[in-house]
Amino acid sequence: MSEPFHAVDVIITKRDRGELSDEQIDWVVDAYTRGVVAEEQMSSLTMAILLNGMNRREIERWTAAMISSGERMNFSGLSRPTADKHSTGGVGDKITLPLAPLVAACGVAVPQLSGRGLGHTGGTLDKLESIPGWRASLDNAQMMAQLEDVGAVICAAGPGLTPADKKLYALRDVTGTVEAIPLIASSIMSKKIAEGTGALVLDVKVGSGAFMKDVNRARELAETMVALGTDAGVTTVALLTNMQTPLGLTAGNALEVRESVEVLAGGGPEDVVELTLALAREMLTAAGRTDVDPAEALDDGRAMDVWRRMISAQGGDPDADLPWAKETHEVRAPADGVLTQLDAYKVGVAAWRLGAGRARKEHSVQAGAGVVMHAKPGAIVRCGDPLLTLHTDDPDLFERALEALDGAFFIAPEGSRPDLLPLVIDRIG
Amino acid sequence: MSEPFHAVDVIITKRDRGELSDEQIDWVVDAYTRGVVAEEQMSSLTMAILLNGMNRREIERWTAAMISSGERMNFSGLSRPTADKHSTGGVGDKITLPLAPLVAACGVAVPQLSGRGLGHTGGTLDKLESIPGWRASLDNAQMMAQLEDVGAVICAAGPGLTPADKKLYALRDVTGTVEAIPLIASSIMSKKIAEGTGALVLDVKVGSGAFMKDVNRARELAETMVALGTDAGVTTVALLTNMQTPLGLTAGNALEVRESVEVLAGGGPEDVVELTLALAREMLTAAGRTDVDPAEALDDGRAMDVWRRMISAQGGDPDADLPWAKETHEVRAPADGVLTQLDAYKVGVAAWRLGAGRARKEHSVQAGAGVVMHAKPGAIVRCGDPLLTLHTDDPDLFERALEALDGAFFIAPEGSRPDLLPLVIDRIG
Repeated sequence: MSEPFHAVDVIITKRDRGELSDEQIDWVVDAYTRGVVAEEQMSSLTMAILLNGMNRREIERWTAAMISSGERMNFSGLSRPTADKHSTGGVGDKITLPLAPLVAACGVAVPQLSGRGLGHTGGTLDKLESIPGWRASLDNAQMMAQLEDVGAVICAAGPGLTPADKKLYALRDVTGTVEAIPLIASSIMSKKIAEGTGALVLDVKVGSGAFMKDVNRARELAETMVALGTDAGVTTVALLTNMQTPLGLTAGNALEVRESVEVLAGGGPEDVVELTLALAREMLTAAGRTDVDPAEALDDGRAMDVWRRMISAQGGDPDADLPWAKETHEVRAPADGVLTQLDAYKVGVAAWRLGAGRARKEHSVQAGAGVVMHAKPGAIVRCGDPLLTLHTDDPDLFERALEALDGAFFIAPEGSRPDLLPLVIDRIG
Repeated sequence: MSEPFHAVDVIITKRDRGELSDEQIDWVVDAYTRGVVAEEQMSSLTMAILLNGMNRREIERWTAAMISSGERMNFSGLSRPTADKHSTGGVGDKITLPLAPLVAACGVAVPQLSGRGLGHTGGTLDKLESIPGWRASLDNAQMMAQLEDVGAVICAAGPGLTPADKKLYALRDVTGTVEAIPLIASSIMSKKIAEGTGALVLDVKVGSGAFMKDVNRARELAETMVALGTDAGVTTVALLTNMQTPLGLTAGNALEVRESVEVLAGGGPEDVVELTLALAREMLTAAGRTDVDPAEALDDGRAMDVWRRMISAQGGDPDADLPWAKETHEVRAPADGVLTQLDAYKVGVAAWRLGAGRARKEHSVQAGAGVVMHAKPGAIVRCGDPLLTLHTDDPDLFERALEALDGAFFIAPEGSRPDLLPLVIDRIG
């Protein structure tokens, strides 16, 4: 018997509300990565973790074991400090696109290892791939060179980084075990710590369009991640932000890139600009640069310059026309009044069903598909005004997207005031 | 999309403490049997069921779905009523061996579909296979003919009976989800209902050597199974019986067959005789035969006659010498006094490690291996008396068996009285 534990004993420990020992955690994560612990054993363990929890020590050790499953990167050779941002995922959340070049323009390097979308939330790489020629894959040397030269890189994580997490993430997705705070926290933080960033700002979304619908659970997740980062020597801060309604006026790949470029050009929707600046200030502060104002770098075009260089460095043409979907369909206001609700989750599902997202990892996405919003909560609308425009290459998809939008918005009598949370709800760290 | 549900939605329903609908249950059991629901999805669902439970309606529907996954047998063509017994498994539990021929000798046919041992509890088929020539596999026609002719059959369930349960049982064994009352109850009862017995007596074990250590959980399991059987038209009764200490004086395959033959010959340990008669009376009553006394059929040799014919009908030689293990090791009393404890679980693990049981389904067992007990709780012992004899073909196995026996028995000062539960603790039905 060369293995020091049996998988069943580890599962039963957690099933019966026990604490996993450091040795059990090290072994089970490593043995799962090696294929000695089977998929059906890990899924039963993750369900037990979801339902019975893990304490701080267990989460920290689990995170460390995931980091140890692969390589660690090191940016200490760069001439400037590094800061990264991670969002727990929302609808219309294109913030990384203007944020990375903006922070780089202020003198802090941004090594953004991003993912693809799955479910109703879009993926940063899917969005950027709507730019003709742009490619997500860089090797470590290319990434380092671009960080030194341009200051910002947004690319796919290589296969060597936290392979345990890659396997576990795919498993959780098909076994109903995504929504476990210990597993979400260790998944995010293992990648970010292994990536080697010096500072990290977490954008923890709260609301219908987020994984955390409830502010208390979002705060628990944020506190867990801030503690994990801090203990690993990464300066870590979290903002809890509102995901009750989509960010900006677009959800969909090329649609969101266009909106991001508007922000970099000094325009764009107010909420996208506000959150981009709030996160930029946190990243700069965490990286020790309290002397610069990101609003200036947005106004004077320096952020746009970095964006253009960042896109070009990865083969993209920043001046290319972005694709449009072949077909559109208008959703109009059914009454006069005040738009008091526009539900992030329902808009996200509609965009997903229009082809902006994928139901399975092996599917591809449509570059032009998605939803354009013409009004946000608080706006006064007239009966017959366009509220949403749905975009897709395949008109057969309109029907299921419209079903997803059933009950997505509410128009209250004129004079009503929507009960809106602030965009930034809280700060932890 | 030809499937009416997504596995993840079914998992999440139970994970979030919801009730599974009839349609969800029918689909998930069927889709798992077809391989559309993956092993890692079913294991995550079973962990959620273990931790969050199922109500009576869900358990009943789950049982029905498992029955529907395969064929159903029908004994209504037999000239006599049928009754079967199921034990939830214990150490030294050879009761099926004398019981089936005894009940058949009293005019009720016994169609015993049995299993092999896994873990510390022995399997009835493993025990009978220590008889030279005896074979466990019969097709349905052979089984029916033997039931009509001999009146008792103990054989392996064919592949057509509850295939969903076969798959699920193997999965639960490696994923830490064995100990869920809804899954234990539906596994046992789906097999017994599909088997087509008219009456069923359940021997639900309680104590260290049983799956249920606690009498309240054992009672819950018994009540659940009695309700499932009754609702399916099977006259069902359960006895809760003591498994704090092993049954009889032997644990191991050929060792237990010898002891069973002693009982059939009118001798044997008191507890084995008592439980055999108690279960026989319940089976006869449930099958409508209140006019016969099984004690007589044991005394006058009729049960032994059926045993011999039953073994012969399946190729076994009832007069053959049974195998003995090559090596033995004595464990002696370390003090004078009263034996107040002899732990069933520890003796079971010792027998298992000596080679009587298997750690994985594909392993074979030793016919002669096991433990012979020379005293049971309540007995007065003298320092140096033999307490246990360990039997195995491989002397290297003694060490780990002796480790398992650490703390297995306790000798109290003379005059002490062990605090023993009765053999039959309760009756439900």
